[in-house]
Amino acid sequence: MTKIYTLDQIKSVVETMNFSTAIEEGFVAYSKGRVIVPPVGELIFEDPPGDTHIKYGYIKGDDYFVIKIASGFYQNVKLNLPSSSGLMLVFSQKTGVLDTVLLDEGYLTNVRTAVAGEIVAKYMAPENVSAIGVFGTGTMARMQVQYLKSLIDCKRIIVWGRSEASLQVYKDDMETEGYDVQTTLVASDVTESSNLILMTTPSIKPLIKIEQIKAGTHITAMGSDTAEKQEIDSRILGTADIVVADSLIQCQERGEIYKAISAHDLKLEQVIELGSAIESGNRIRTSDTQITVADLTGVAVQDVQIAKAVCTALGNVEG
Amino acid sequence: MTKIYTLDQIKSVVETMNFSTAIEEGFVAYSKGRVIVPPVGELIFEDPPGDTHIKYGYIKGDDYFVIKIASGFYQNVKLNLPSSSGLMLVFSQKTGVLDTVLLDEGYLTNVRTAVAGEIVAKYMAPENVSAIGVFGTGTMARMQVQYLKSLIDCKRIIVWGRSEASLQVYKDDMETEGYDVQTTLVASDVTESSNLILMTTPSIKPLIKIEQIKAGTHITAMGSDTAEKQEIDSRILGTADIVVADSLIQCQERGEIYKAISAHDLKLEQVIELGSAIESGNRIRTSDTQITVADLTGVAVQDVQIAKAVCTALGNVEG
Repeated sequence: MTKIYTLDQIKSVVETMNFSTAIEEGFVAYSKGRVIVPPVGELIFEDPPGDTHIKYGYIKGDDYFVIKIASGFYQNVKLNLPSSSGLMLVFSQKTGVLDTVLLDEGYLTNVRTAVAGEIVAKYMAPENVSAIGVFGTGTMARMQVQYLKSLIDCKRIIVWGRSEASLQVYKDDMETEGYDVQTTLVASDVTESSNLILMTTPSIKPLIKIEQIKAGTHITAMGSDTAEKQEIDSRILGTADIVVADSLIQCQERGEIYKAISAHDLKLEQVIELGSAIESGNRIRTSDTQITVADLTGVAVQDVQIAKAVCTALGNVEG
Repeated sequence: MTKIYTLDQIKSVVETMNFSTAIEEGFVAYSKGRVIVPPVGELIFEDPPGDTHIKYGYIKGDDYFVIKIASGFYQNVKLNLPSSSGLMLVFSQKTGVLDTVLLDEGYLTNVRTAVAGEIVAKYMAPENVSAIGVFGTGTMARMQVQYLKSLIDCKRIIVWGRSEASLQVYKDDMETEGYDVQTTLVASDVTESSNLILMTTPSIKPLIKIEQIKAGTHITAMGSDTAEKQEIDSRILGTADIVVADSLIQCQERGEIYKAISAHDLKLEQVIELGSAIESGNRIRTSDTQITVADLTGVAVQDVQIAKAVCTALGNVEG
């Protein structure tokens, strides 16, 4: 009998869980070739604009495989609906039978993305963070900061957004969470004050330029996951000391690395894959002056790992 | 709130429904380029062997899009489980939000495949069917015959299978349904007695040869839907008077047409697409002596059309 869980049930277990080890192990297994991840399935809609991604795969010899569907319809806000939605499906690898439906409405995709950013920060953030720079004021702009809480002592945020109104809501919300928040409509305010920058927008035009980036800055680019989206100047990747991709294969077709390679600002040989880079357990950043960039497009192995962990937790709650 | 329906609920409405018009319209829209159908997503498993297909798409300007997952794990019989399983997901094309989960366990995939075979028979079967020839004794070997009931008067079946035991069960079951059933382990018995042949096996080797095919025979090849599976000799497609594909794009990568083109027995130019061929409403077969073949690999537009129709019917039942 297929088990079905709602968002409320899922949230109730997720809020007490820590996924970083499971997802680190997933990235390492992925880079070692032990994970089957076919190309991302994609539906693009024009009116209203939206995109749906199907990410799916399995760790060889594991009990389960996972198919995850996540959509972004950015005009949903006009209808008072969240822009992101979706679900995760967990199947038996031995029989193909559907074991569990996680009606997570895109929540677990956000969580596993925030966890990937947490892993990146653990290995790549500067030792002393002057301020956390955030581009965007949406779900990931909040969740990513929260997932860095245990890792980064700094409680100062400088946030860029397109509207005063959304910046004010962000400031109010995050100050309730104990942060000191400065807002700005000027991108260079962020790059000047911060050395740990989180890009969390669905922008299709670069928001920051190479000239603005100080030595010692780390950028985690989380927003761009299609061939269209781009948040940072390609030349930043070309001149960075270290560029990390969550998936070398995927980043050749979507995200910042795809854009930078297409613009001839970056060569694939300059890019290292997250799972390979963290396998030893050593930090990826080796000095306080390096400029480092991580491009997260979202890999199915993250969905596989989080869905399995949540199913186990939900099963234990039931039992 | 996402609506969720079980197999029993789905069966209760499907048994009273006729999908042929909706699916014919789907094929025509598809051939006219009004349907977005990305390449089939696929996971292949080795131990135990199995395959999972993700078919998805939408008719432009429609209210919904559909993602269908269907698996075949052929050793499930050892565990007393059906070999096929799966589900269909219906989403709003305006918001991306998940509207309905149809926990059909692969049933609707079987139904929409049988309906495609019914449409093919309507346009391609000989006027006078001497006997219905069936290769295979599984779900589709039964369901396809049932879906031809309103179209084909002939009540004589000659069925080929690999084991006397499964043939006997098939014979008993179909005789209860009012058919006169002859069983055989010899393929040429079928091709000699029948001029409407249904291929419904997951075979990876051709079961019938060109030399066995009589003038006036129609073959519907329903079993082969991967690059590995093949039920009929490629030369049959090469010499047939008419070869129809459910999808020209898909049949270049999987199924009988793929095999025949790879073997240089068939050229793509010899193949016509079902939706184009039926658009006029005229029969595709134009004489009693033609040899005709239809290759059904299963197109997402069938899933889109059946899922929408079932959702509407289930909504009406609820109301």
